[in-house]
Amino acid sequence: MTRTGRRPGGTDTREAILSAARKAFARGGFDGATVRGIAGAAGVDPALVHHFFGTKQALFVAAMEFPVDVGAILPALLAPGVDGLGERLVRLLLSVWESERSPFIALIRGAVSHEESAALLREFISRELLGRVAAAAEADRPELRATLIGSQLIGLAMARYIIRIEPLASADAATVVAAVAPTVQRYLTGPLP
Amino acid sequence: MTRTGRRPGGTDTREAILSAARKAFARGGFDGATVRGIAGAAGVDPALVHHFFGTKQALFVAAMEFPVDVGAILPALLAPGVDGLGERLVRLLLSVWESERSPFIALIRGAVSHEESAALLREFISRELLGRVAAAAEADRPELRATLIGSQLIGLAMARYIIRIEPLASADAATVVAAVAPTVQRYLTGPLP
Repeated sequence: MTRTGRRPGGTDTREAILSAARKAFARGGFDGATVRGIAGAAGVDPALVHHFFGTKQALFVAAMEFPVDVGAILPALLAPGVDGLGERLVRLLLSVWESERSPFIALIRGAVSHEESAALLREFISRELLGRVAAAAEADRPELRATLIGSQLIGLAMARYIIRIEPLASADAATVVAAVAPTVQRYLTGPLP
Repeated sequence: MTRTGRRPGGTDTREAILSAARKAFARGGFDGATVRGIAGAAGVDPALVHHFFGTKQALFVAAMEFPVDVGAILPALLAPGVDGLGERLVRLLLSVWESERSPFIALIRGAVSHEESAALLREFISRELLGRVAAAAEADRPELRATLIGSQLIGLAMARYIIRIEPLASADAATVVAAVAPTVQRYLTGPLP
């Protein structure tokens, strides 16, 4: 494949690809978007998208501005088994949020007012992270479980970082993990109506 | 007391009082705001505020645009005791949200971007409703319990009505109540770290 030459590469090109990717993922979801289509919208050759971002999965992660590559951390999260999975998930997300808060908070803020961000957040919950965690628990109705977990985790981020309700906002991470983990574990493996 | 005459009453006056009240409650919280200060900011006599809204508590409810008067429904919520309180709370809020969604959703949307709305939502959680429900459970650390419940309920509203994540967004209310009520009940009465 040859580059079109319209965009010579560099920061502007990377941003143009990310912008096109966000629009494409928001419009068609993960499955509906293609690297070829995103490249076309950004005015670059698909090979350049692969050069910058690797797989479509990695491009999605970059487009959502996750501070961590979920695909890379998921095996360690799931490997110890279903026992304690809720606690490991809450601890992982809290550690990400505490160290690099802005991208996720920006996504939640955006989701309130922009359908594009809401679509990305839905993908995160139903597919990118929570859908896979719920599937790993191998219980019934994994889609409902993933969205129930999402409701608690989005609410936790809202309450702790955006609305900043005390004493939850200032509670240490260990307290929050211990309080919220049983909720997530029940949504993962407990009985559902 | 005599009216100042600057505002003769009616819809404009009512809105001016509500607008001043929102600013005052957002700035100073429930305790920091006074009916006298709100009346002054609205350019009316305090007696007119009482005429329109009754107590400061009722003014606060009106300023937050609650579709229900929490003070009026709280006794029925609490009367049957702590058993099942989580379920009654979730069922009540869902029924309010399903029938008259916009005020609460507007409050959550606003809280993401406006400190004024965030302050009102904090008041709602820590004092107006959840603080009182948590206090009624008579367990340790009621403030932390109230905010944990708030995190789940805000997240539920976000996931179901704003981000609209399926299948949670379309699940019938009974399913949502049955799934979420044990979380709220555990935050009310379960062990805390």
